[in-house]
Amino acid sequence: MTELIPPLPAGARTGAYTLTLSCPDRPGIVHAVSASLVAAEGNITESAQYGSPETGSFFMRVEFTSPRSYEQVHSELSAVAGGFSMSWQLHRAGQRVRTLIMASKSGHCLNDLLFQQRAGTLPVEIPAIVSNHRDLEPLAEFYGVPFHHIPVTPETKQQAEDRLRALMAELDIELVVLARYMQILSNELCADLSGRAINIHHSFLPSFKGARPYHQAHARGVKLIGATAHYVTSDLDEGPIIEQEVIRVDHARSAAQLAALGSDVEGRALSKAVQWHAEHRVLLDGMRTIVFN
Amino acid sequence: MTELIPPLPAGARTGAYTLTLSCPDRPGIVHAVSASLVAAEGNITESAQYGSPETGSFFMRVEFTSPRSYEQVHSELSAVAGGFSMSWQLHRAGQRVRTLIMASKSGHCLNDLLFQQRAGTLPVEIPAIVSNHRDLEPLAEFYGVPFHHIPVTPETKQQAEDRLRALMAELDIELVVLARYMQILSNELCADLSGRAINIHHSFLPSFKGARPYHQAHARGVKLIGATAHYVTSDLDEGPIIEQEVIRVDHARSAAQLAALGSDVEGRALSKAVQWHAEHRVLLDGMRTIVFN
Amino acid sequence: MTELIPPLPAGARTGAYTLTLSCPDRPGIVHAVSASLVAAEGNITESAQYGSPETGSFFMRVEFTSPRSYEQVHSELSAVAGGFSMSWQLHRAGQRVRTLIMASKSGHCLNDLLFQQRAGTLPVEIPAIVSNHRDLEPLAEFYGVPFHHIPVTPETKQQAEDRLRALMAELDIELVVLARYMQILSNELCADLSGRAINIHHSFLPSFKGARPYHQAHARGVKLIGATAHYVTSDLDEGPIIEQEVIRVDHARSAAQLAALGSDVEGRALSKAVQWHAEHRVLLDGMRTIVFN
Amino acid sequence: MTELIPPLPAGARTGAYTLTLSCPDRPGIVHAVSASLVAAEGNITESAQYGSPETGSFFMRVEFTSPRSYEQVHSELSAVAGGFSMSWQLHRAGQRVRTLIMASKSGHCLNDLLFQQRAGTLPVEIPAIVSNHRDLEPLAEFYGVPFHHIPVTPETKQQAEDRLRALMAELDIELVVLARYMQILSNELCADLSGRAINIHHSFLPSFKGARPYHQAHARGVKLIGATAHYVTSDLDEGPIIEQEVIRVDHARSAAQLAALGSDVEGRALSKAVQWHAEHRVLLDGMRTIVFN
Repeated sequence: MTELIPPLPAGARTGAYTLTLSCPDRPGIVHAVSASLVAAEGNITESAQYGSPETGSFFMRVEFTSPRSYEQVHSELSAVAGGFSMSWQLHRAGQRVRTLIMASKSGHCLNDLLFQQRAGTLPVEIPAIVSNHRDLEPLAEFYGVPFHHIPVTPETKQQAEDRLRALMAELDIELVVLARYMQILSNELCADLSGRAINIHHSFLPSFKGARPYHQAHARGVKLIGATAHYVTSDLDEGPIIEQEVIRVDHARSAAQLAALGSDVEGRALSKAVQWHAEHRVLLDGMRTIVFN
Repeated sequence: MTELIPPLPAGARTGAYTLTLSCPDRPGIVHAVSASLVAAEGNITESAQYGSPETGSFFMRVEFTSPRSYEQVHSELSAVAGGFSMSWQLHRAGQRVRTLIMASKSGHCLNDLLFQQRAGTLPVEIPAIVSNHRDLEPLAEFYGVPFHHIPVTPETKQQAEDRLRALMAELDIELVVLARYMQILSNELCADLSGRAINIHHSFLPSFKGARPYHQAHARGVKLIGATAHYVTSDLDEGPIIEQEVIRVDHARSAAQLAALGSDVEGRALSKAVQWHAEHRVLLDGMRTIVFN
Repeated sequence: MTELIPPLPAGARTGAYTLTLSCPDRPGIVHAVSASLVAAEGNITESAQYGSPETGSFFMRVEFTSPRSYEQVHSELSAVAGGFSMSWQLHRAGQRVRTLIMASKSGHCLNDLLFQQRAGTLPVEIPAIVSNHRDLEPLAEFYGVPFHHIPVTPETKQQAEDRLRALMAELDIELVVLARYMQILSNELCADLSGRAINIHHSFLPSFKGARPYHQAHARGVKLIGATAHYVTSDLDEGPIIEQEVIRVDHARSAAQLAALGSDVEGRALSKAVQWHAEHRVLLDGMRTIVFN
Repeated sequence: MTELIPPLPAGARTGAYTLTLSCPDRPGIVHAVSASLVAAEGNITESAQYGSPETGSFFMRVEFTSPRSYEQVHSELSAVAGGFSMSWQLHRAGQRVRTLIMASKSGHCLNDLLFQQRAGTLPVEIPAIVSNHRDLEPLAEFYGVPFHHIPVTPETKQQAEDRLRALMAELDIELVVLARYMQILSNELCADLSGRAINIHHSFLPSFKGARPYHQAHARGVKLIGATAHYVTSDLDEGPIIEQEVIRVDHARSAAQLAALGSDVEGRALSKAVQWHAEHRVLLDGMRTIVFN
C-alpha cells in the first residue's frame, strides 16, 4: 500500500526527551531532578508530579529539550537517581515504542490501531501482528505489517508462547497489545510482561468480568456499556486500569447490538491507552495507574 | 419561603392524557388501541411502542389530547384492554405523582429533588419527607414539606415501617424515593412497593455492590465513577435499572473526593429516574426497564 | 481482499418492512395506518410517532413484519396515504441503501465507514468512491470498492459534477456521503441532492463555521471540540443537523492535536448519521431533523 | 438554619500552601523555584507545569507543605521571583476565597453554589449575595448569607455599581460570580474585575452568543446543548473560557424544555469553574486559560 498519510518528519523532535520516575516520597526530589536538567542545559516544556498518599510514592514526568546527547543527559540524571532510590527512564522524544499486536478474528481494535499509527497519531512502530487465526491477515498486509499465524490449542499453548517470546526477542518488542486476542496467556508470560502488555476488556470493569460481557450487560439491563484498557496480570480482568470509556444504550438494543456499539468504545479506550503508554504518560502505583495526561 | 418560581399554570394541560400499557405481543394491538382513541376523539401528540424479543411482551406509551372526560376515555380503552390481556394505566397529564422522599443525613439528592420540584421541572407533589435523623429537617422546612422523624434501630424497625405504611396510606402516596436513605427496607416492604420505590445507589452497578462503593472504586483505580437509580427489590442492589450516570476521575482523587464528585451524578441520575417515572415513561420488562424518553 | 467478516445472510429479514411517513397533523392518522397494517397481516416490532408543534406536522416510523409481498403491503398503505396528504416510503428491511462516498485526502472518515460497512453494522452498499485526489485509492481497493478519480478545478467543476451525476444515475445511487470531501458542491447539485447527501463538518456547529475550525477552536480556547453531521444544503454549514459529538480537550493541545483528536469524533458522528439515515430513522421537519433512535 | 454538613476541621491543612506563577519561558525556572522550596523545607504533594508555545509564557502550580510560616516561605520565593519577572501568588491552603455572588430571578446556579459551599466541596466563603430582584432572598436567608437588593435601571446603573464596589471593598471580596445575573456590567467594572469575575453563559460558546440561546439552539436543531463558564471581559461572551459542559437533547424538546435541561449543565459548569478558581488551578494565557486539574 502506498502512504495514505505522510510520515512524521525524521528528527522532528531531535533533542527532545521525556523523563519518567518514581521513588519513595521525601523533600527535595524536584529540586534534585531539576538541578540535573539545568546541568544538562534542559528546558522544561511540560511536567507533572504527584505524591500518592496510599503508597507513599512520588511520581514525576518531564518533557524537556536539551542540546546535549542522550548519554550526557542520562549521565546527569544517574548522578541524582541513586540518592533517591528512583526507578527512572529517559526516552528520546522521536523514538517510537516497538509494539506487537495480538488479535484473533475481530478486527475493529486492530483496524483502529493500524489506521492511527499510519496517520501519525499513535507514536508506535508495529513490526509484527500475531494471531491464532488467519482472518485478519489481509488487513495486516494492507498496512504492510508482517503477520504471524500462531495457532493455539491446549496442547500447543506452551509452544505457541515460546514462538511469541522468540519473536519478541528477535524484533526487540517493548509493548504487547492484546487487541481482542481471545486466548488467555499463561501466568509466567503475564508475569514476564508485567507493565508491558495492554489488554482491552469489553466491559466496564469490574462489572461483567469473564465471558460474554455484552450478554451479561443486556441481561442486567444497564443503561451504559463500556470498555476497559488495562495492563495484563495473571489475575484475569484485575490488572491496573489505564482507560475506560462508556456509551449510552437503551432497552431496544439486543446483546448483539450492544456488542456492535461496544466495538466503538473498545477501539477508543485501547487506542488512548496505547497512545498514553507510548508517550510515557502511564506509571504504576501498586494496582492503580498514574496517568499524566 | 415565598415562591422562587411560579407554579405550573392550573389546568394548562386539561384534556391531555398519557396511556401506558403492556401485554403479550400479537398483531393488532396498535390498531385496537388507536381505534379506542379515535372513538374518544383523541389526537396523538407523542407515542412509542416496543416489542421485547426476550419476554414476548409488547409495550406502548401514548400522549394524546381528547375533549372527553377521563371516565369516558377510560371506558373506551377498557373495551379493548380485556381482549389483549393488557396491564394498562390512564393518567391525566396535569396530575402530579404523590411522592414521599426518604433520606438520612446526606442532603444532596434531597436538595436536588426539592429544588427541581419547586422549579417545576419534576412533575411530582411531595407531601412528606421521612428520615431516621433530624439533620435535614431545616431543608424540608425551607421547602415547606412536612418532615417526619422516624428513627430506626434493629428493635424498632418493624414499628418504623408500620409508621411509614400508615403515613403512605394517609397521604395517598404513589411513589417512594430513597434519596440516600441509609436503612435497608424489609423484604415485605420491598415486595409491597414493587415498581413504586426508586433508590439511588452510589456506584455504577453492578460494579461495587454493597458498602462503601467509592472506597472500592478508589482501590480498584477505575477511571470513571457512577451512580445508578433503580427500582427497589428485596434482592439488594439488583433491582431493575432506570438510569445511570458517570463522571471521569483521575488518579489524584482520594476516596473522599470521589464521594464528593459522585454526589453530583447521584443527584442527576435520581432526578431523571424520578422525572421519567412521574411522566409514566418507565415500564417493567422482567428485571429490565423500558424507558420511552 | 478476502472477507474479514461474513456478510449478512441473504434474506435474513424477508418479510420485514420499515414505513416512514409525515403529513399535516390531525386525529386518526395512527389508526388509519395501523388499519392498513392489520389488513396486511402486519405485526409491529418497533414504532415511534411525533407531532411537531412548530410546523404542525406529524411524523411516524414503523418497523413491522408481514407475510405479504412488498407490492401488497404498498397497496394497502396507498389506500390511506392519499386521504392524509402523506409523504411516505415503504422499505424492505433487508435492502441496503446504495451509497456513494466522496473524499479528498483525509481517510479517517472513509476508513470508519468502509470498516463498519464490511463488519455489517452499517446497512449500506457502497458501489463507488469518488475523490478529487488519488491518495485514498489503495484504501478503496482494499475494500474492493471501485474508485473514481474526478479532479476538480474552477474550470472543470461543472464537468466534474456532470460526471458525478452520470455515475449516480448509472449506479442507482440513493445517498451521497461527503467524508471530508474538500470541495464545495454547486447550488444546483445541493438542491438536487436535498435530503440525500450527508456532510461531516469538523466543528460543533454553529460554532466555527467556515475554514480551519480547529484553529478557530484553539484560538478561542474552548474546552470541548466537536463534529457535526448534517444534510447538505446550498447554504453552507447550515443544513439540518443529524448528529453531533464532542470530546474534552485541555489547554496543552495544539491546533494540530485538536485536529487529530477531532478526527475520532468526526468519524463517529458521520457513521451514526449514515447508519440512522440508512435505517430510515431520520425525517426532515423544516430545517430540523426528527431522529427516531 | 443548623449545619447540614459539618464544616472543614479548622487548621486541617495548616502548613500547606499553593503557589502559582507565570513568567516568560526560559531554562532554569523549575530549578530556581524548587530551590526556594527546599530552602523553605517544603515538600511537594502535587505540581504541574506548562510552557505555552503561542505566548512564550511558562506556567507553574505547586501544592506543598512546609513547617515555615507564610511570611518565611513568601520571603524565600520573593528572592527568586524577581530574576524571572514572575507574576506569582502564594496561598495558604486553608484560606477560603471570599466570594460575592450576583443573581437575578433564576436560582438554580445560586442553589448549587450555596449547597456545595455548605457541603464543603467548594473552598469559598460567601459573605454576600447581590441581586437586582428580591426573589432569591429566602434562599440566601436559608443559607445564612446576607442578601443585598440592588435594583438596576438605566438611570441608576452607575449608582448600583458604586454600591457594589463599596460592598466589595468593605467585605474584602476576591471573586465575583455572576450566577445568571441578567444585567450587563459596565466596561469599567469589567476591566477592574479582570480575572476576578466568573460568568455562566447558557450556551456552548461561541455558538448562540447574545440573547435567548436556548431558543436559538432549538431553532437550529442542535443535538447537544451546553453551558460555558468564563471570565468576564468588556467584550461580552468573549472572555477566557474556564469550563464547558454539554448534554444530549433530541427533536422532541421544546425551547422551554431545553432551558430546563440546560439549567443542570449551567450549574455544573459554573460550580467547577468556581472550584478550580478557588483552588488556584486557573491561570490566564492571553485570551485562553490554563487549567491545572
